Amino acid sequence: MIVCKFGGTSVANAQQIKKVANIVKANPARKIIAVSAPGKRTDDDIKVTDLLIQLANSVLQGVDIELKLNAVIERYADIASELGLDDTIIQVITSDLNERLASDKSEKAQFMDNIKASGEDNNAKLIAAYFSSIGMPAKYISPKEGLIVNDLPERTFALPETYVNLSKLAHVEEIIVFPGFFGYTKAGVLRTFDRGGSDITGSILASAVGAELYENFTDVDCVFSANPRVVNCPVEIKEITYREMRELSYAGFSVFHDEALMPVYKQGIPVNIKNTNNPDAPGTHIVPKRPAAGSPVTGIATDSGFSILYVSKYLMNREVGFGRRLLQIIEEENISYEHTPSGLDDISVIMRSHQLNDEVEARIIKRVKEELHAEDALFRHDFSMVVIVGEGMRHNTGLAARAATAISNTGANIEMINQGSSEVSLVFGVRSQYENQILKALYEEFFAHTTV
Amino acid sequence: MIVCKFGGTSVANAQQIKKVANIVKANPARKIIAVSAPGKRTDDDIKVTDLLIQLANSVLQGVDIELKLNAVIERYADIASELGLDDTIIQVITSDLNERLASDKSEKAQFMDNIKASGEDNNAKLIAAYFSSIGMPAKYISPKEGLIVNDLPERTFALPETYVNLSKLAHVEEIIVFPGFFGYTKAGVLRTFDRGGSDITGSILASAVGAELYENFTDVDCVFSANPRVVNCPVEIKEITYREMRELSYAGFSVFHDEALMPVYKQGIPVNIKNTNNPDAPGTHIVPKRPAAGSPVTGIATDSGFSILYVSKYLMNREVGFGRRLLQIIEEENISYEHTPSGLDDISVIMRSHQLNDEVEARIIKRVKEELHAEDALFRHDFSMVVIVGEGMRHNTGLAARAATAISNTGANIEMINQGSSEVSLVFGVRSQYENQILKALYEEFFAHTTV
Repeated sequence: MIVCKFGGTSVANAQQIKKVANIVKANPARKIIAVSAPGKRTDDDIKVTDLLIQLANSVLQGVDIELKLNAVIERYADIASELGLDDTIIQVITSDLNERLASDKSEKAQFMDNIKASGEDNNAKLIAAYFSSIGMPAKYISPKEGLIVNDLPERTFALPETYVNLSKLAHVEEIIVFPGFFGYTKAGVLRTFDRGGSDITGSILASAVGAELYENFTDVDCVFSANPRVVNCPVEIKEITYREMRELSYAGFSVFHDEALMPVYKQGIPVNIKNTNNPDAPGTHIVPKRPAAGSPVTGIATDSGFSILYVSKYLMNREVGFGRRLLQIIEEENISYEHTPSGLDDISVIMRSHQLNDEVEARIIKRVKEELHAEDALFRHDFSMVVIVGEGMRHNTGLAARAATAISNTGANIEMINQGSSEVSLVFGVRSQYENQILKALYEEFFAHTTV
Repeated sequence: MIVCKFGGTSVANAQQIKKVANIVKANPARKIIAVSAPGKRTDDDIKVTDLLIQLANSVLQGVDIELKLNAVIERYADIASELGLDDTIIQVITSDLNERLASDKSEKAQFMDNIKASGEDNNAKLIAAYFSSIGMPAKYISPKEGLIVNDLPERTFALPETYVNLSKLAHVEEIIVFPGFFGYTKAGVLRTFDRGGSDITGSILASAVGAELYENFTDVDCVFSANPRVVNCPVEIKEITYREMRELSYAGFSVFHDEALMPVYKQGIPVNIKNTNNPDAPGTHIVPKRPAAGSPVTGIATDSGFSILYVSKYLMNREVGFGRRLLQIIEEENISYEHTPSGLDDISVIMRSHQLNDEVEARIIKRVKEELHAEDALFRHDFSMVVIVGEGMRHNTGLAARAATAISNTGANIEMINQGSSEVSLVFGVRSQYENQILKALYEEFFAHTTV
């Protein structure tokens, strides 16, 4: 059994949904599909989810909503009519939306979640109706039937019973169309996944039914070995391990959100990233293990927006607990950090800059100086991280030297090197201005010469 | 005013003490000297401190001490007679020793400290007597006159009032001979410095009187840029900053203990490491700042005996506080660590192996797996750290690449690179079997070609 997930652009209009039907039809093993809300049809289009957010905001602000509500319904109506469906499905969607709009608004976040999630929910109903209309027996199934999430709005995840509940779906005869992006608490409150929405739903379904494969359909042919906006025609990644994929996602590189991999990772279920618009392309396979291939490097990712907190104190390394106390201060500011390179008398904490502002920085500096008696404490900004990823590259003698040499040859100074824990990655910190130049140089070093 | 410290080999016998007198005489600014107990005269000699430890142990075990006591007294008597001193000083030393031996033994550690410290204390009295006998007005001053330490036996350090108390010594007319290695608590209990004994005393004195220079006399001409037992005739270091010296001491490289630098570091007092046996050699100057010199690298040190705790957990980087909680477990085992390189889903903690044993390791692994739910946690042993030190090398583009390339060319795999905090050092972790080979290769890379 294969679980498929179709992203927003894969279900943006009637033409796309027909492609989805053909893909599902082409392999009888494709029995469960998770769908997103209709995405952008063109670059300057508005996603249904964004229309729904506008609608919910208008309701909460008490302004007239008619135009906004119509815009949402018209998107579905256009799709339905092009798919040759009769008016029934639009009546279902309209009454669903009206019911949600009339629901309790005392908890604004809950109300917003409820309106937003209708995008996926109603699209699943529409797609199930379309499948049935063309002779593909299909059934819409609501997350109410078992996708139970915790009651922590900022950090929604599926509870263990979800996997038991949804395992039943393996025995449904029809093709199941399941809306992505949300679940319900035990008390019946709808909650959306904060990140990677529909990808997580697909991954949960694949795990629950013990799928042989989780196909994640999107609008790219594969995962590339480097950002194609920077590197010309980068090598396509055919096969990548979970942990390689995770390390690449460090730099926002991943096609889908890393947390979405968790449920399938736990079961060892392989993932295939494929293109709805080119389903014959093999795509990228994410697997638990893979044989060592030619190049030690699988991919290179870069990301900007990092800051460094530098703290120094003479004889710091003689103080048991210094590092731990520093991290405690950072933690108390609710900041997560990436790396903590250290010398004898100094330690740096590397974190994403968006978590900082002048006030937070001043507070941290003050505490570090007063509570830890640091001689020096300061923030530096505008750093990028460059991540080189490859299974087994740790044991490739000379790889770090090659990478450092390639970076230095661009004229950039290496501000940080982090190697020594991950078996599959090597991280360099550099000034952001050099980021693209370095990515090109590293790609040249590790890929350009390997193509035959 | 210059404060000098003379180490154990510099005051091991009459001939050495005559050298000390000549050195002090040669510069009238040398007004305060801190002295060690008589050290080894030959490679197979026994230091007076070790004789004293044997003596104290015999007392505590209740066995006969006559031979051991005589051995100590004879060392002083030999020195005194060769220096042409009359019997008075030996009477002073003998009665001092008898008084200490008769003192309270209920606190064994205190008794041991009291006996051990007599080595320095009586040598200072003897040297002061000798100076006076040859027409150099000198005065023995006891740490009782102001060197006040905290009341924490495992971690002795001078309290702030010490610096006020001892500042008076600047106005003493005679040359002051001050015993190194110990001080007294406010309650009058003698405590020895746990590490770097007499070096710390000299440093405290230099700081207290605001010396223009702290001369640290030992038995080597200088600090070398690499271990001369591994590298043939390494370059001598003429000038080095405090922090370069500190980073080199990471690997046990330093001529004197790093904590000893603290008092002079705080005052910015320069230090000159000199050779009692070759006082005309310029030695090595330790200074707050120095101009950028030719080579970006000042020294290279290596040390073995490191272990790595590797911990991995999928989505570790999403857990705020994971690193802090891991360090807390390490801290609760009273283990200090050196570096914590981290990937996205794993973190390594690098520590000195001597702090570990099977039991401690098993306990840590158990806690990490149970409390942090780590998927993987294991210890790896037999690593060496290679430290490359140089003021400003951080901004030397390509230095990390050169170092990594030199290491890789030995065939060694780089297990860890730590760069990114210290401005003056770059640390590589390697398998210990490659340590010497790597030191040679790095010396070749950074020094061999720079000599003209």
